[in-house]
Amino acid sequence: MEGKRIDGKLDSSSDDAISHLSIDIGGSLIKIVYFSTNSKCITNDEAPAISKERQEVPNGDLNHHILSGRLYFVKFETSKIEDCIKFLSFKKLQQCGAQCHHSHAVDKIKIKATGGGAFKFADLFRDKLGITLDKVEEMESLVAGANFLLKAVNNEAYTYIGGQKEYVQIDQNDLYPYLLVNIGSGVSMIKVDGDGKFQRVSGTSVGGGTFLGLGKLLTKCQSFDELLELSHQGNNRVVDMLVGDIYGGLDYSKIGLTSTAIASSFGKAISENKELEDYKPEDIARSLLRMISNNIGQIAYLNALRFGLKRIFLGGFFIRDHAYTMDTISVAVDFWSKGEAKAMFLRHEGFLGALGAFMNYKDGNAELVPPQLLEQQSPKSSSCIVDRIHNSTRVQENENGAIDCRLRVSSSFKIYDEVKRC
Amino acid sequence: MEGKRIDGKLDSSSDDAISHLSIDIGGSLIKIVYFSTNSKCITNDEAPAISKERQEVPNGDLNHHILSGRLYFVKFETSKIEDCIKFLSFKKLQQCGAQCHHSHAVDKIKIKATGGGAFKFADLFRDKLGITLDKVEEMESLVAGANFLLKAVNNEAYTYIGGQKEYVQIDQNDLYPYLLVNIGSGVSMIKVDGDGKFQRVSGTSVGGGTFLGLGKLLTKCQSFDELLELSHQGNNRVVDMLVGDIYGGLDYSKIGLTSTAIASSFGKAISENKELEDYKPEDIARSLLRMISNNIGQIAYLNALRFGLKRIFLGGFFIRDHAYTMDTISVAVDFWSKGEAKAMFLRHEGFLGALGAFMNYKDGNAELVPPQLLEQQSPKSSSCIVDRIHNSTRVQENENGAIDCRLRVSSSFKIYDEVKRC
Repeated sequence: MEGKRIDGKLDSSSDDAISHLSIDIGGSLIKIVYFSTNSKCITNDEAPAISKERQEVPNGDLNHHILSGRLYFVKFETSKIEDCIKFLSFKKLQQCGAQCHHSHAVDKIKIKATGGGAFKFADLFRDKLGITLDKVEEMESLVAGANFLLKAVNNEAYTYIGGQKEYVQIDQNDLYPYLLVNIGSGVSMIKVDGDGKFQRVSGTSVGGGTFLGLGKLLTKCQSFDELLELSHQGNNRVVDMLVGDIYGGLDYSKIGLTSTAIASSFGKAISENKELEDYKPEDIARSLLRMISNNIGQIAYLNALRFGLKRIFLGGFFIRDHAYTMDTISVAVDFWSKGEAKAMFLRHEGFLGALGAFMNYKDGNAELVPPQLLEQQSPKSSSCIVDRIHNSTRVQENENGAIDCRLRVSSSFKIYDEVKRC
Repeated sequence: MEGKRIDGKLDSSSDDAISHLSIDIGGSLIKIVYFSTNSKCITNDEAPAISKERQEVPNGDLNHHILSGRLYFVKFETSKIEDCIKFLSFKKLQQCGAQCHHSHAVDKIKIKATGGGAFKFADLFRDKLGITLDKVEEMESLVAGANFLLKAVNNEAYTYIGGQKEYVQIDQNDLYPYLLVNIGSGVSMIKVDGDGKFQRVSGTSVGGGTFLGLGKLLTKCQSFDELLELSHQGNNRVVDMLVGDIYGGLDYSKIGLTSTAIASSFGKAISENKELEDYKPEDIARSLLRMISNNIGQIAYLNALRFGLKRIFLGGFFIRDHAYTMDTISVAVDFWSKGEAKAMFLRHEGFLGALGAFMNYKDGNAELVPPQLLEQQSPKSSSCIVDRIHNSTRVQENENGAIDCRLRVSSSFKIYDEVKRC
């Protein structure tokens, strides 16, 4: 996977049959998580094929069935929401909806949705797709998504130190409390104490939207990834004022600042008679990335310190598995905490909210689909859940970031029943 | 005064005779504080005139004399250090030095200097002016300067709430501890526990240098004040992504964010097909100022919280008595602290370091000038020092920010002796 997420493509050739889908509509990006049984479009005739995949739940709960399948992750830019609409139109879930000629059936298509766009675009989804967005609170979704990933997915969290990734073994008995830092357009910082137990303790408006917004204005780049690529080739020392620039090349060792520490981000642009065009976009992108990453790392650390949290998990689409971003955040947390706190990154970083909204189906409308990801319901054990899952191969991640898993659904939900109504 | 500081002018007509001068050379600005007896250039013949101004110290210390005069404050851009050199050349201190033909006398001209530039430009001052920069540690200077102002100058500190300044009466018995936030090119945050007792606990590279650096690149402005003026006329909602922009005009009340709160600074520049030229410089300047002010306010609050400090004093030349800057910082501190902490501003904000370096003469080389500002040596009293000083009129501020005061100097220092050597 290594940070490469599936961008939504208008490709109707995919043969995956979506049984459940959730959506997180943020200020800049739309994130979709969907569970698919990997079967072709389900019709009445094909229904038995789905049925075959059902298994009894191991603990003998006869009110539930198990579906085998895969969780997929897709994203779109919010400014291109029409592409998202088209993508959903091509997918089976929507095909079913589109083929429904009975208005009451159309009204019943509900998907779990979170993020501010679940409010903003509710009418658009209803009008264009006949879908009702069943809103799940944003922070609740982020926390549910992070908890699931940390407990259920092997090698989800990792540190990034000195250019090296090191996967972190999570002991679920020692997971809480932690600080969740979700870096979307803006940044939310949430103290997580357990399943559903959390508090948004801080945040900052200086996030991914700032990086791309300022980056577009300063470099004329067209996308986040282009801006990241620019930063990769840049040198921040051209634009930033370093301690050594002020101190004549010397460290300011008394307060622990080396000559190469940044004293003032973009501070060199003051003293030189240069205009924007005289700077390389690469150098500007690098300074911008470092300014924002460092700032987030610092504020995250200060909040972790405030609540005595040793572990900081970072999610959101700002990071994108980008080495320099992770390195700067890691160094910032390490520097300010004097090595006491650790920044850890999540492989499914950008999909916490969408995944958390998906988890919310368990509390949802029984008329539609009250499913639960099986792993979420596993009894607690003193052994390491990552090992347990690894051994049981219940949750596996394939090379595209999709997760093989099984879904427990209420017996009252019959996936082909819904199709039958079409 | 109201934020209007004296910019250095190449004007030799001033008749002030400088007896002591200190300098703070930062990454962007050079700040100078000098004490003048307001007499014409001192010669052997005029020496008695100075002598007349001397008074015995009230506590009967026969080893010291008192000089009456005024502290002046001047600043230059560091990039225009040649102007500073010329300014000093025109002043009496340097005129005396320049007229000295004996190399040993020239070597003896030392001035207290702080900031990184005291290292970087030491050779330049020696070569061009024959002045040795006697370095004083930067944080120590900031703290000494702030302590002096808070204890000795009437109406130095004020809050800025709802567009109103309110001067704060400082009880010197309840001054410590406090957080000192000095916003220069970068930002230092210092926990102050007493005279000479302090710790630099945090800082950020996102400071005044970032505001002007990014501001120059984005708006082509030529100066800090021009950028501030632009921001005054701008509307940040054009560029920033607000909570309401994401939530379809709604508040996100569950986490205490109104629809007008900034979710992502510069976040709107993502989603629109606009280039830099399509935005008004005023709106960009406003977003930039708000981003940086809010960020500083937040990090300051988090550090104040960390150490249980209720009072945050802000210095440095970023603020410049600018209403919107102060308002944003005040609101940030109030918002994040839920009203528990207060941001307070200092009228001599930009001169803390230079003033603190000046205080350091008391520990300095006895061969040159070991003076002490009289107020610094006043016996502690349980009454409010501000009232005391106000009543005694020992320290007064005139309309240009200069402070009328008296200087206690060692009897071994004879101001005309130094002149006599010329």
